[in-house]
Amino acid sequence: MKRLPLLLAAVLCVAGASAQQALWSASKIVSPQINGDNSVTFRLMAPEAKSAVVVCDYTAADGTALAPGKMVRGGDGVWEFTTPPLMSELYSYNFVVDGVKVCDPANVYINRDVASVANIFIIGGDRGDLYRVNDVPHGSVKRCWYDSPTLGKSRRMTVYTPAGYEQGREKYPVLYLLHGAGGDEEAWMTLGRTSQILDNLIAQGKCRPMIVVMTNGNPWQQAAPGEAADGMKQPGMKFDPSQTSFEESFGDVIAYVEDNYRVIRKKEARAVAGLSMGGGHSFNISRMYPDTFDYVGLFSAAVRGVEDPEVAESLVRQRDNGLKLYWIACGNTDFLYQANKDYMKYLDSISFPYTFRESDGGHIWRNWRIYLSEFAPMLFRK
Amino acid sequence: MKRLPLLLAAVLCVAGASAQQALWSASKIVSPQINGDNSVTFRLMAPEAKSAVVVCDYTAADGTALAPGKMVRGGDGVWEFTTPPLMSELYSYNFVVDGVKVCDPANVYINRDVASVANIFIIGGDRGDLYRVNDVPHGSVKRCWYDSPTLGKSRRMTVYTPAGYEQGREKYPVLYLLHGAGGDEEAWMTLGRTSQILDNLIAQGKCRPMIVVMTNGNPWQQAAPGEAADGMKQPGMKFDPSQTSFEESFGDVIAYVEDNYRVIRKKEARAVAGLSMGGGHSFNISRMYPDTFDYVGLFSAAVRGVEDPEVAESLVRQRDNGLKLYWIACGNTDFLYQANKDYMKYLDSISFPYTFRESDGGHIWRNWRIYLSEFAPMLFRK
Repeated sequence: MKRLPLLLAAVLCVAGASAQQALWSASKIVSPQINGDNSVTFRLMAPEAKSAVVVCDYTAADGTALAPGKMVRGGDGVWEFTTPPLMSELYSYNFVVDGVKVCDPANVYINRDVASVANIFIIGGDRGDLYRVNDVPHGSVKRCWYDSPTLGKSRRMTVYTPAGYEQGREKYPVLYLLHGAGGDEEAWMTLGRTSQILDNLIAQGKCRPMIVVMTNGNPWQQAAPGEAADGMKQPGMKFDPSQTSFEESFGDVIAYVEDNYRVIRKKEARAVAGLSMGGGHSFNISRMYPDTFDYVGLFSAAVRGVEDPEVAESLVRQRDNGLKLYWIACGNTDFLYQANKDYMKYLDSISFPYTFRESDGGHIWRNWRIYLSEFAPMLFRK
Repeated sequence: MKRLPLLLAAVLCVAGASAQQALWSASKIVSPQINGDNSVTFRLMAPEAKSAVVVCDYTAADGTALAPGKMVRGGDGVWEFTTPPLMSELYSYNFVVDGVKVCDPANVYINRDVASVANIFIIGGDRGDLYRVNDVPHGSVKRCWYDSPTLGKSRRMTVYTPAGYEQGREKYPVLYLLHGAGGDEEAWMTLGRTSQILDNLIAQGKCRPMIVVMTNGNPWQQAAPGEAADGMKQPGMKFDPSQTSFEESFGDVIAYVEDNYRVIRKKEARAVAGLSMGGGHSFNISRMYPDTFDYVGLFSAAVRGVEDPEVAESLVRQRDNGLKLYWIACGNTDFLYQANKDYMKYLDSISFPYTFRESDGGHIWRNWRIYLSEFAPMLFRK
């Protein structure tokens, strides 16, 4: 029985004669169009516009950053701009049309970064291939709610389980992966491409199958914007100095994960890593929960407090307990670069072993995806 | 230890002095602003624009549909339009600025419908409250991959499990909920607000806790656009008359769900429902898998094929096997309204029992959310 064509025919047929329904309101414009040489053509139908510009974090194939692209109006009212060949990467962009920053109406792929949205596209061939969905076994991604008695609320987390988790009985190691200021439990999934990176690294045999737990590090929130009972507000921060810290509540996270997933409950099977504020969280969590994590990743981390005797003491204890990897990564133009250098000087002074990965670039998701791609393969090795 | 303020201070402080990073590129414009009387103010900063219009499916509090709203430019270059008080609902809108349809740059809440994107907002107080995230226990939502030997590929599905599923040992009934043409395994979650509707109905005691399985009904696809290895293409349809139908592969779906979730493996604990093409799928699946489903929901369904003797015979068998609810819902201005009336005439002719729910309106998500909200409470009652 081949019912599908019949059904579709029924729907599409009648829909054609009907004005009422919006099955196909797709743009006829193709944008972005990735060309054979990895140049990219952006298009926008805007006959009345006076100017249109592509603002994108694109990088030419030779590594040079490119300026915003001035689109040129064609006779048909379609504005167009074509880049030179681009480096393999995941890129974000917006159009600025007569001074208004908007998303590309022809591109449905959109990421939110804190309180703004941008379209994305991927140039494959190298690093970008790691961020693509490839024809490999895929893990599952679950959004679930855990109880945090420490913060006095139910909270949302995102959990990646590797392909085969459902079918097997094996226990897995866990990477706790933390976002930065303004982010939430969605950030590593959307901007960080975590499930794609893990699927691909695991399929390539470069990374041990692991569970990745992406928490919400904002103690005043239950969940990402729009996912909690405070409504669809413009994303923002709520400062409350009296608030119990996320780090103090992290035991609730570990308890939930270890109660609800098949995990190896050992130090050697736990990693914690995060970017920026989440790097600071990882710094704190790894020393506040003694002998719990063998792997720590500080990505462009906001590290503070070594002048506090209590903190200093906990670092010495962490050093004495021993751990397998304390990985500090930072871009050489990151505004936290010097702070990280200073922190490493401090670690040197107490003979705390660490590895430093210096990259180009600044405080950007491009770097954090690279750091995750390099950090994950080092984890949970015998 | 109250580390959070320190960390945030570290990040925000230095960020203030740094131009390199985009932590806070949020719009200072508030839009949409829901006013105390449930009127809504839309705003757009566009000093150079010649015209700006709000295109929205809004309905006034008294039930009248409203025309697109012409925004008026203020002296500061901010265009503004305020609606009359609106009916409680979930609404979608775009701005049309000098003829270009764009999303509201100040609103990060965006839904994709087939190949176009629109912002959303909710007016509470009545029906809209059911679509909100409220302060109730929340179910989990998982995106996972199942093997479909019938279609010869691994495929993605979305599974809602009710609050308490993880912690308990109870077995649950299952609603299989199918999308329409152009949709995919994300449609019922985003446009249909399924997890919110189920969380709220269950919390209100109006609906039995159940698992909801949202499949991808396009047999040529593995997954929603951007989630499979065919890349970030503009969403579209691929017709292949030789393709095995989704309905034929539905046994693979049931097998996966019943192997991987704690479900009650009984006819009385299985429901299948869908909209438009998915209504056609539900019509087919419920008769093709004999004695499997006690509950069937056809929402604005594209039903075809009763003139086929094989189909007619299967309907007679379905009638003779008996079932608890065969629920047909359609809007009175839906382009499939007459087809549904004709189908019911046919059902009458063979004394096939059904219930008809006629609503106002057409082939739109507003109706499908209403139908789900009414259908789910009728399921799995003793």
